[in-house]
Amino acid sequence: MPIVQIELLEGRTVEQKRAMVKEVTDAICRTLNASPEAVRIIIRDMSFDNFATAGVLRSDQKK
Amino acid sequence: MPIVQIELLEGRTVEQKRAMVKEVTDAICRTLNASPEAVRIIIRDMSFDNFATAGVLRSDQKK
Amino acid sequence: MPIVQIELLEGRTVEQKRAMVKEVTDAICRTLNASPEAVRIIIRDMSFDNFATAGVLRSDQKK
Amino acid sequence: MPIVQIELLEGRTVEQKRAMVKEVTDAICRTLNASPEAVRIIIRDMSFDNFATAGVLRSDQKK
Amino acid sequence: MPIVQIELLEGRTVEQKRAMVKEVTDAICRTLNASPEAVRIIIRDMSFDNFATAGVLRSDQKK
Amino acid sequence: MPIVQIELLEGRTVEQKRAMVKEVTDAICRTLNASPEAVRIIIRDMSFDNFATAGVLRSDQKK
Repeated sequence: MPIVQIELLEGRTVEQKRAMVKEVTDAICRTLNASPEAVRIIIRDMSFDNFATAGVLRSDQKK
Repeated sequence: MPIVQIELLEGRTVEQKRAMVKEVTDAICRTLNASPEAVRIIIRDMSFDNFATAGVLRSDQKK
Repeated sequence: MPIVQIELLEGRTVEQKRAMVKEVTDAICRTLNASPEAVRIIIRDMSFDNFATAGVLRSDQKK
Repeated sequence: MPIVQIELLEGRTVEQKRAMVKEVTDAICRTLNASPEAVRIIIRDMSFDNFATAGVLRSDQKK
Repeated sequence: MPIVQIELLEGRTVEQKRAMVKEVTDAICRTLNASPEAVRIIIRDMSFDNFATAGVLRSDQKK
Repeated sequence: MPIVQIELLEGRTVEQKRAMVKEVTDAICRTLNASPEAVRIIIRDMSFDNFATAGVLRSDQKK
């Protein structure tokens, strides 16, 4: 019953998400011997003001 | 000090959320012997493009 | 497809958890019009050294 | 490799978030002996309809 | 900067986890055009008393 | 009502956690104008087998 939560910086297209959930689910099933129906994936989009590394917002790193 | 995080597919009304947090808090207090003031609930709404089961986005399952 | 994550201070019995997941699931289904099979609950037990309010570990608040 | 997730009620400015991630990162590095580059912070803004204490939505507590 | 959190029922071996994080990272990089160094994966093992579907603990479903 | 979740690699002492929650709470209150009583911090310790960067478990990176 794997439950996956993925935080992404905003801007990914639905096509990218569609491919990503398919391939991540396959990867989990292949390696953990789980059935695809048991895998749930939650995606959360982060704005560039809502993610920081080294104490600096991503929106400031891009400047 | 129970802290509850609930992911829901988007579309629930404020009335539904109002009833839900009341009843979930009651259920936790009744069964765990906690005080209502100690219970915090975070709700996160997911778009249909941001949730997948069996490797398929929910927005594609609805088609 | 509600997915629920609940953080609890350690020490709850399996009997308490059994009753809690039953009643929380019922509360969600009743108020959000969801089917029980769609509800998943993850419980995470916190040690008293791993939870703080007002900047003080719970293990220090008990002293 | 500390990974920090912070849920905030909506309404904080970018200036407040900028200062917060800087000071939280400093606090973690100072006390845990971590390098700033290793610290990642995810901020999630909650609407007043998506947070409850004592079984009452924050949007209802303000009335 | 994808950050991935995966909840698994306990019992997976280190070999399974090693293969899983490798293949999930590859899947994310391939589909989202991310660099492997940017992907962080947190695994959390759940005991059978700490996961429920349909209001029933997993430890009770196995009986 | 900031709620903070911090994932750490295992091995931090209670003294380190005590100092960390104090200073992180101070940093949040100072920058967001919150009261200390409103800040809750959840710490989760990760084993070296349960964290990966670049597709490699931390326990393998140390070898």
